[in-house]
Amino acid sequence: MLPQRLNFVTLGARSVRTLRAFYRSWGWHENDGGSDDYASFTAGSVAIALYPIDRLREEAAPSSDLPPSGAWNGVTLAMNFAQRSDVDTAVDEAVSVGAQLVAPPMDREWGGYSGYVADPEGHRWELAWAPGFDPD
Amino acid sequence: MLPQRLNFVTLGARSVRTLRAFYRSWGWHENDGGSDDYASFTAGSVAIALYPIDRLREEAAPSSDLPPSGAWNGVTLAMNFAQRSDVDTAVDEAVSVGAQLVAPPMDREWGGYSGYVADPEGHRWELAWAPGFDPD
Repeated sequence: MLPQRLNFVTLGARSVRTLRAFYRSWGWHENDGGSDDYASFTAGSVAIALYPIDRLREEAAPSSDLPPSGAWNGVTLAMNFAQRSDVDTAVDEAVSVGAQLVAPPMDREWGGYSGYVADPEGHRWELAWAPGFDPD
Repeated sequence: MLPQRLNFVTLGARSVRTLRAFYRSWGWHENDGGSDDYASFTAGSVAIALYPIDRLREEAAPSSDLPPSGAWNGVTLAMNFAQRSDVDTAVDEAVSVGAQLVAPPMDREWGGYSGYVADPEGHRWELAWAPGFDPD
């Protein structure tokens, strides 16, 4: 039995500097203890961390190649909003500070409404409203 | 400004069935509302969700190829423990139910102690102890 717990999501970064600046541009407050090679941002019970991808590979995938630069990694992160209209606002805001628009907000099969943006290294964020789900 | 918030980490799954069984084997309790194509597990303020990778791609990376099967995706998830010795126990437990051992627990440059395992589709989990960090 392992605890049902997630403390960190670490994004291997080609450039910690670029990604740090990007997430700061979202208005995010960086945790103390960062360095040129490390940044973390607390989001609820989890911290989103940035760490050089070659050093992360040494730890997490020592016999593997680096994933291709800029390609989608098969994972999405989602930020939910209380109101459907908040999604439009959030996508506009994200794009205005340099996020790549991947998919404009649209109705989704599962009953919600969401759009996708990517950070400068292609990590996907779904900005979403789901009926009956209060993210706060 | 975007809220500093993470509600879902969705892992694109080649087989939702396999990954669901794997995380259940960790003793995790699945949220209601799952289906053959969807499972989610709440961990603190975040839910870890499983969704077919081809369908996730249609939403999140419509013009991209699927990432290569089984390759490291450049991301790690971490589960922290209160005691250093808990890491050894957790890695043993994870491996005993079918996790792939990627790196045995060892002292880390940053002052902690951790090992890495992978789920059946290669998603990395760092099982870690960090001095002074209480994960509960």
